[in-house]
Amino acid sequence: MQITGEMLIGARAVRGQAKAIQGINPATGESLAPAFGGGGQAEVDQACALAAQAFDTFRETAPEARAAFIEAIAENILSLGDALIERAMAESGLPRARLEGERGRTVGQLRLFAAVVRAGNWLDVRIDPAMPDRAPLPRADLRLRQIALGPVAVFGASNFPLAFSVAGGDTASALAAGCPVVVKAHSAHPGTSELVGRAIQQAVTDAGLPEGVFSLLFGSGKDVGANLVGHPAIKAVGFTGSRSGGTALMTIAANRPEPIPVYAEMSSINPVFLLPAALQTRGDAIAKGFVGSLAMGAGQFCTNPGLVIAVEGPELDQFLQTAAAALAEVAPQTMLTPGIHQAYSEGVAQLKGNAAVTAVGEGVAGQGPNQCQAGLYVTSAEAFLTDERLCDEVFGASSLVIKCRSTEEFAHVAEHLEGQLTATLLLDDADIEQARALLPVLERKAGRILCNAYPTGVEVCHSMVHGGPFPATSDSRTTSVGSAAILRFLRPVCYQDLPAALLPTALQDANPLGVRRLFDGRNEG
Amino acid sequence: MQITGEMLIGARAVRGQAKAIQGINPATGESLAPAFGGGGQAEVDQACALAAQAFDTFRETAPEARAAFIEAIAENILSLGDALIERAMAESGLPRARLEGERGRTVGQLRLFAAVVRAGNWLDVRIDPAMPDRAPLPRADLRLRQIALGPVAVFGASNFPLAFSVAGGDTASALAAGCPVVVKAHSAHPGTSELVGRAIQQAVTDAGLPEGVFSLLFGSGKDVGANLVGHPAIKAVGFTGSRSGGTALMTIAANRPEPIPVYAEMSSINPVFLLPAALQTRGDAIAKGFVGSLAMGAGQFCTNPGLVIAVEGPELDQFLQTAAAALAEVAPQTMLTPGIHQAYSEGVAQLKGNAAVTAVGEGVAGQGPNQCQAGLYVTSAEAFLTDERLCDEVFGASSLVIKCRSTEEFAHVAEHLEGQLTATLLLDDADIEQARALLPVLERKAGRILCNAYPTGVEVCHSMVHGGPFPATSDSRTTSVGSAAILRFLRPVCYQDLPAALLPTALQDANPLGVRRLFDGRNEG
Repeated sequence: MQITGEMLIGARAVRGQAKAIQGINPATGESLAPAFGGGGQAEVDQACALAAQAFDTFRETAPEARAAFIEAIAENILSLGDALIERAMAESGLPRARLEGERGRTVGQLRLFAAVVRAGNWLDVRIDPAMPDRAPLPRADLRLRQIALGPVAVFGASNFPLAFSVAGGDTASALAAGCPVVVKAHSAHPGTSELVGRAIQQAVTDAGLPEGVFSLLFGSGKDVGANLVGHPAIKAVGFTGSRSGGTALMTIAANRPEPIPVYAEMSSINPVFLLPAALQTRGDAIAKGFVGSLAMGAGQFCTNPGLVIAVEGPELDQFLQTAAAALAEVAPQTMLTPGIHQAYSEGVAQLKGNAAVTAVGEGVAGQGPNQCQAGLYVTSAEAFLTDERLCDEVFGASSLVIKCRSTEEFAHVAEHLEGQLTATLLLDDADIEQARALLPVLERKAGRILCNAYPTGVEVCHSMVHGGPFPATSDSRTTSVGSAAILRFLRPVCYQDLPAALLPTALQDANPLGVRRLFDGRNEG
Repeated sequence: MQITGEMLIGARAVRGQAKAIQGINPATGESLAPAFGGGGQAEVDQACALAAQAFDTFRETAPEARAAFIEAIAENILSLGDALIERAMAESGLPRARLEGERGRTVGQLRLFAAVVRAGNWLDVRIDPAMPDRAPLPRADLRLRQIALGPVAVFGASNFPLAFSVAGGDTASALAAGCPVVVKAHSAHPGTSELVGRAIQQAVTDAGLPEGVFSLLFGSGKDVGANLVGHPAIKAVGFTGSRSGGTALMTIAANRPEPIPVYAEMSSINPVFLLPAALQTRGDAIAKGFVGSLAMGAGQFCTNPGLVIAVEGPELDQFLQTAAAALAEVAPQTMLTPGIHQAYSEGVAQLKGNAAVTAVGEGVAGQGPNQCQAGLYVTSAEAFLTDERLCDEVFGASSLVIKCRSTEEFAHVAEHLEGQLTATLLLDDADIEQARALLPVLERKAGRILCNAYPTGVEVCHSMVHGGPFPATSDSRTTSVGSAAILRFLRPVCYQDLPAALLPTALQDANPLGVRRLFDGRNEG
């Protein structure tokens, strides 16, 4: 499949007339052909109008048809073959194995949502049958199902050019819910975006769905994204990226004549609590495992462990020595974009310039452009609790160790934190009671709590929560990874005394879809 | 029980030092003793600090204990006896039968939420067991449950001094979810609020719960409410009232350092589509039933039918004649407050002053203070589609008939509407296909769709949706009536590889709570 540099608006390919963007190979700095003409208000309007037109048809597709459509997207992505992997490598600097793994995750995620659509729990069918003889008043026949929210704007993320981009988790869950999707491509990987976009466009055509089910827009500045979120046809937004980007979208959405929900996954430093017995019995092993998690993928994960909380003393000194030795062997890795590399360098420089912070160890210094040098730093709990700058996320392979005088201080540090995607406990049996005391605070602060694992690596399954209180996300009631992500794009509708001829299939007495129901207050199926 | 005019802050009763409010009997205009001293920032801070302290304990109460606590609130409200009904009558002008019925609904609603807490579907338990041998990567043990969002601010509504006020649906669902509640009492019924507040306070004490589970504040202006929504301890807001009030709270909540969800139920004109065959075969009966729904309770319901859409012609003329005759017998009813009465009078005057609007009929004119004269008005679809003022809600017993040239225009009128709580179809078998064509539009516009019924009367059950797109509510993904209202006050947390000793009860292997679970992707229970 050719990469043409065109936007995809419904079934058409359209060359944008506004300022063009081009992919850049971060490993070499070279620009990658072709140029992608940027869109403007006209293309936003066209894509949104088509999405609105497609909505009533698409949201009422039968579960089997919608699932098959989503599976066809997965097949079409696989059919792109190595061209997709090579383009993504060139645009992101990520290694082949990582991108092949990410493709597997993307395809697996689409198939999971197809299975979720078929199973139908998301419909949340509830039936309260009529009670015509109830006194003093009869009860009507009342039935509830969830329906799709409306067309969704999705913003591709730079750090997962496949799994959180054009056909990533937001798009998969929105399509599964029955929402048409308009994607604003991330400018860091436009060619990858076009390839995947064409795979979706083809699936829409092959399934005989209205063309407006999917569109893909490019834009060099913030206008296309802002216009998209402000468009009256758009009813929800999915975003993964920076705190400033996410909060800007939240502001636009809240100030619309009709405010809409924004699901922005933004900022997290993912504290790791290193409990005393674990530190004492296996500090060296933990130090090595931790450095592996810290440095993986140049630390460019939302769940990168950016904070370690431990009690000072000889065991911690030993831990830091081992970590420093492991770090010294971490090779430099190319970061995703020059902008991310620059922000990382500035963040690390700010840490190092802080009088309360000491360097524990650093990885091998970069030699080529945009390379990340891993680093581990240390400060005191006292300094951390009084200096807000030390809570800022440094996106990349950098982490800060907080030395506490005792485990009593762990809860103060935890309470001091903003909302997080994850919180991790490294513990042994002897640490259980201290962990138990900390757990309520961590539940209030984070969407996922791990024991004896590292937060990098997010399983795509039913129980996953990739979410958490602000600013980890804009909406702690949801997750952007895993099957529960579909719930973001639904709203309930109640049908009262509808004639059988008008009842949606999901709500018919005989349960033709075979879904789980709450019937007169009892669970069925 | 004495009405003292004090606020309830945790276990204490506190006399506010700011400007006092007093109940007013709208039927007579007299002020009702005692005066209720208004609270200030200090009392907001105290109530919120207590709520935050109570949160971790209250949210982890066992389902049985929490259910029993909620049932005790219901018992304590009943124990208030006639004093509650008489005070509510004096403060609201509502008749005894209505308030007795509303008390029954309030108590029934509390008991429903107790049953919901016990059943445990709201926990949404999901378990994806570990797959240590999976290739290329093992799967960790992952488990999800919903936990309470945090302390909730609830604003009492004027039009349901029991069922949507201090112990109303918002409070009941928030407590059921495990959230402490701080209520800002509605100034129209402070005595009723204190009585019910003391019933809750007593239940908190008797259950041995932390005192901060419940507080009740008074305030004469907007400061107490604004300070409450802005307080960092508050994590969600429940509100039923005007569009201006609700959107003001949305703005405060969105502009906090940590934005929080607002569940505001605001404005709805509840269109009723009168389909041709139904109009022809039983127009007279419909006209009488409609006027009954329109005039019930002086039209002071969120679901009052404020719009009728029908095709012009002799059948409609006959319908209007019958409706006018029925209206002429509608006695004037005292409205809830002088402010509501004045707004109603102004809204009706604006309608009557519109050159495109004609009066069909009116009820008996009021003689005492604050009495509502019911009214029915008519305009053309053309006028309605071009004059935004005709879409404004007139809160009270007024409705506007939209004359269409054909049923083709029904969809245009429906598309033109803002979000609604309800949409109603009055139809016969011969109307089914026309109704089918309209249904997708109504699903996009409303939270509840009714056939051959009137939207007043909202059943408190599992399938109810008292919600809908903006401005009917601030969040179309939810309902403020019925058991699904509990979902507003929850967020998911994922637990990865937690030792059994640390797992919350709901997530333990043996399912000690006996709740419905999604185990490895399969429904259980």
